[in-house]
Amino acid sequence: MKKIIIFDTTLRDGEQSPGASLTMQEKLIVAKQLAKLGVGVIEAGFPISSEGDFEAVKLIAKQVKGPIICGLARTKKEDIDRAWQAVKYSKKPRIHTFCATSDIHIKEKLRKTKEEVIQMTIDAVKHAKSLCKDVEFSPEDAARTDLDYMCDVVKAAIESGATTINIPDTVGYAEPEEFGKRIRYVFDKLGNIIRKNNVIISIHCHDDLGLAVANSLEAVKNGAIQIECTMNGIGERAGNCSLEEVVMNIKTRKDFFKDITTGINTKEIFKTSQLVSSLTGLAVQRNKAIIGQNAFAHEAGVHQHGVLSHKLTYEIMKPEEIGWIGTNIVIGKHSGRHAVEAILKDMGYDLTKDQIKKVIGKVKNLADKQKEVMREDIIAIATDIAGGLSKEEEIIKLDEVKVTTGNKTQPEATVTLIVDGKKKTGKGKGVGPVDAVSHAIGTMIDPSIKLKEYGLKAITGGTDALADVSIKVQDKNGNIFKAEAVNEGIMMASAIALIKGMNKALNFKRKPKKRIHAQY
Amino acid sequence: MKKIIIFDTTLRDGEQSPGASLTMQEKLIVAKQLAKLGVGVIEAGFPISSEGDFEAVKLIAKQVKGPIICGLARTKKEDIDRAWQAVKYSKKPRIHTFCATSDIHIKEKLRKTKEEVIQMTIDAVKHAKSLCKDVEFSPEDAARTDLDYMCDVVKAAIESGATTINIPDTVGYAEPEEFGKRIRYVFDKLGNIIRKNNVIISIHCHDDLGLAVANSLEAVKNGAIQIECTMNGIGERAGNCSLEEVVMNIKTRKDFFKDITTGINTKEIFKTSQLVSSLTGLAVQRNKAIIGQNAFAHEAGVHQHGVLSHKLTYEIMKPEEIGWIGTNIVIGKHSGRHAVEAILKDMGYDLTKDQIKKVIGKVKNLADKQKEVMREDIIAIATDIAGGLSKEEEIIKLDEVKVTTGNKTQPEATVTLIVDGKKKTGKGKGVGPVDAVSHAIGTMIDPSIKLKEYGLKAITGGTDALADVSIKVQDKNGNIFKAEAVNEGIMMASAIALIKGMNKALNFKRKPKKRIHAQY
Repeated sequence: MKKIIIFDTTLRDGEQSPGASLTMQEKLIVAKQLAKLGVGVIEAGFPISSEGDFEAVKLIAKQVKGPIICGLARTKKEDIDRAWQAVKYSKKPRIHTFCATSDIHIKEKLRKTKEEVIQMTIDAVKHAKSLCKDVEFSPEDAARTDLDYMCDVVKAAIESGATTINIPDTVGYAEPEEFGKRIRYVFDKLGNIIRKNNVIISIHCHDDLGLAVANSLEAVKNGAIQIECTMNGIGERAGNCSLEEVVMNIKTRKDFFKDITTGINTKEIFKTSQLVSSLTGLAVQRNKAIIGQNAFAHEAGVHQHGVLSHKLTYEIMKPEEIGWIGTNIVIGKHSGRHAVEAILKDMGYDLTKDQIKKVIGKVKNLADKQKEVMREDIIAIATDIAGGLSKEEEIIKLDEVKVTTGNKTQPEATVTLIVDGKKKTGKGKGVGPVDAVSHAIGTMIDPSIKLKEYGLKAITGGTDALADVSIKVQDKNGNIFKAEAVNEGIMMASAIALIKGMNKALNFKRKPKKRIHAQY
Repeated sequence: MKKIIIFDTTLRDGEQSPGASLTMQEKLIVAKQLAKLGVGVIEAGFPISSEGDFEAVKLIAKQVKGPIICGLARTKKEDIDRAWQAVKYSKKPRIHTFCATSDIHIKEKLRKTKEEVIQMTIDAVKHAKSLCKDVEFSPEDAARTDLDYMCDVVKAAIESGATTINIPDTVGYAEPEEFGKRIRYVFDKLGNIIRKNNVIISIHCHDDLGLAVANSLEAVKNGAIQIECTMNGIGERAGNCSLEEVVMNIKTRKDFFKDITTGINTKEIFKTSQLVSSLTGLAVQRNKAIIGQNAFAHEAGVHQHGVLSHKLTYEIMKPEEIGWIGTNIVIGKHSGRHAVEAILKDMGYDLTKDQIKKVIGKVKNLADKQKEVMREDIIAIATDIAGGLSKEEEIIKLDEVKVTTGNKTQPEATVTLIVDGKKKTGKGKGVGPVDAVSHAIGTMIDPSIKLKEYGLKAITGGTDALADVSIKVQDKNGNIFKAEAVNEGIMMASAIALIKGMNKALNFKRKPKKRIHAQY
């Protein structure tokens, strides 16, 4: 049996994609669930990029057992040092350094010569190796790099101590046949040194042309044994190779991928997917393979023929294999706290006692008002609370909201806040009731913090569903803060989310940091 | 130059997927846009499946010029006759008939012998051919069918007059290498008869393992010249090969797909995608290749380096190539009706004069209240109106809604309806304001019509955004009716959508029809 290493970069490449930012606590929750899923490596972040990223990688290195914990670094010494400072707390730390090698990147981005790039690679890998046994190197934009030059860089990296070589298709340009040949070429040219040093050949494919999974599988057929991927396929632009798809290909087509295993506990796929989409706010489209809402669904008409015989004829995977749960009812009016705790644990939420108490309180409250509480409701509540602010961070507090609206009267809102311990009341009108609430709040606090995006969804079935509002506010320096709130009332959810976002922005004022962005 | 025929089945396989049902008028709008996009074939529906499907295919056959208009039929005589009755109005009609050929389907679903299946194929193709010159045949679940038996069926279909043979991977099970070999085998074994009869070899891939695009491209490399696909990749379960991905692969990798063209006007891709997602209600995930919101986006940090040099280094396609528009402002307070009309035309909406008037009225209204109206706002309004009911179909009318809500008072709603010309007023309370509105309406009309699903999204940026509410109601026979409404106020949008859905249900009572479902 050949074991393929699943290298998950949901927390680095995935989290880096527009609209996906996670708090430190949220990253920890995801990392713990990834460990449960059985990934071999967690790329936890890019420590030099921001204070938050550094702290998150460190926290994960300290707390998450099982997978290798990897931190990303450019070929700069300070990047590598910073990555090491974060990952060194893990029992299995890895430093991953990368440098662009395609002509266009070398010329347009680095403005270096090819020889200089090789020297940068050697220096970086040697330095990383002096700190950490496990070093990964990626020639960025490899898929568009001259084959022989790419091999020269790879050879230099191996000779300098790299234990994993990752060949990324940074811009998602490759076609499977071509990408497979590229991997084959690496083995043809460098087979001896790869075998001698026990080097792992890895691939990292982007999905710009919809071929990330096919390219990754083709690479595996040609000798790659590490697949870099993300949950739900999130990531820069069109995202990365989707973990669930690549894993389920290998599992479902055992006849085709003979004697290959990924070590993934596929029964954790659905939960992990739900967790990631819930925390990042990146929704999964209904027709997404493996984990989309429709992936195992058939329109009503079909079921009438007899589901059982149909399962055999149309389902190549069983929903149970990926731990499909769907939208089942889990909590009734009389269910206890144990039921809620079990779901939270099951979903990978690792909350403090105080947070669990809050979740249970909200669930009970909801169960009192509605007949039943769905699993998604609980996830939304937990997400809301897990991403919450501490008492000290809560500069503004909401006291009361009151709204009057209708098609024949202009919406009007009265909002009472507690700002620095003092009660303040503001009134506002708007084109709709939420707009009125927003205007009322705006009369009372820092007007330079502006609402940038407003998203609203109902979580489960009926009109008595929870409203899940997610907003983004922007401060005058262009920093963006995401906040989410869940409440039975849309107005309340909107007000709470707005205030949470504003609190985040007000807190950030105290400790600003510039963020660096990696792409490969 | 070899021309690949793009066979679009958005209106058949796509529309058939859970949650995607379109009205006849909506189908016509999509079909007209597909013609503008330059597809070679439009599979407009499955005429036998319902009265609505039949009428829609007929309407499209009559009104849409350019592409071949195709109707689906099982091998049954009545299916084929019904398909012909619908497509015959087109200048280029096609009948597409299919029959399962895999062992599991023959045994579990058809309960026939292999010889019987061949006979069914012969009879069906011959009958179709007696009506229509252009006949397509698909051996359902071909990818899991014994290769030689599949060739026997294909040969029988060609000898009976089929002009296109489509090899579907019905369950999305194939891997590219394997699927390419299957196509190659067809040419190896039946090359002579294919060439002699000028038969088009087509493929139809499902995306259950995320490989539909890769499989389709591999088939093209092995001789297939028709690709069946859908916009946004919608379709049964995980959907079909995505039109935009397969087309942009061939275009972007000209060096790889030498001398191949699809005839698609790629600048219409973005618009078509938006139209389909807006009308079906199937949202496209942010990280979807080619057309996702993030496909051409980079996080803020990157842009600061200088967008221009980055474009060269990270973008393998230009957004302009697919007609990317994004979220630009199009209508200000002083823009006229011409601007709105131009957008509607540009987006492929083919509305009646009366409908255009309504759209303009709503847009002007919104422009008065907000500073600016976004393109998406206009699309949402047009979608709302295009899918609307006629005066006769409007059994219930909304007069007034009034809501009071807050965190310290229970939400309460008063709703006035005009039912059969008479004013009725109802009051309701609820866990949230929308729930209260729903309860108030429930006091006045048929209580057997129940709300099944409630979805809510804000369309553009701020809290003054339009609320786009989409609901599904279910009557006591299990029939489901989707309705959508757009309004600046959430309460109003909810009330309007609920009433529209209920009107649809009340109308349906008069003309019920059972629906048949095709899957291949």
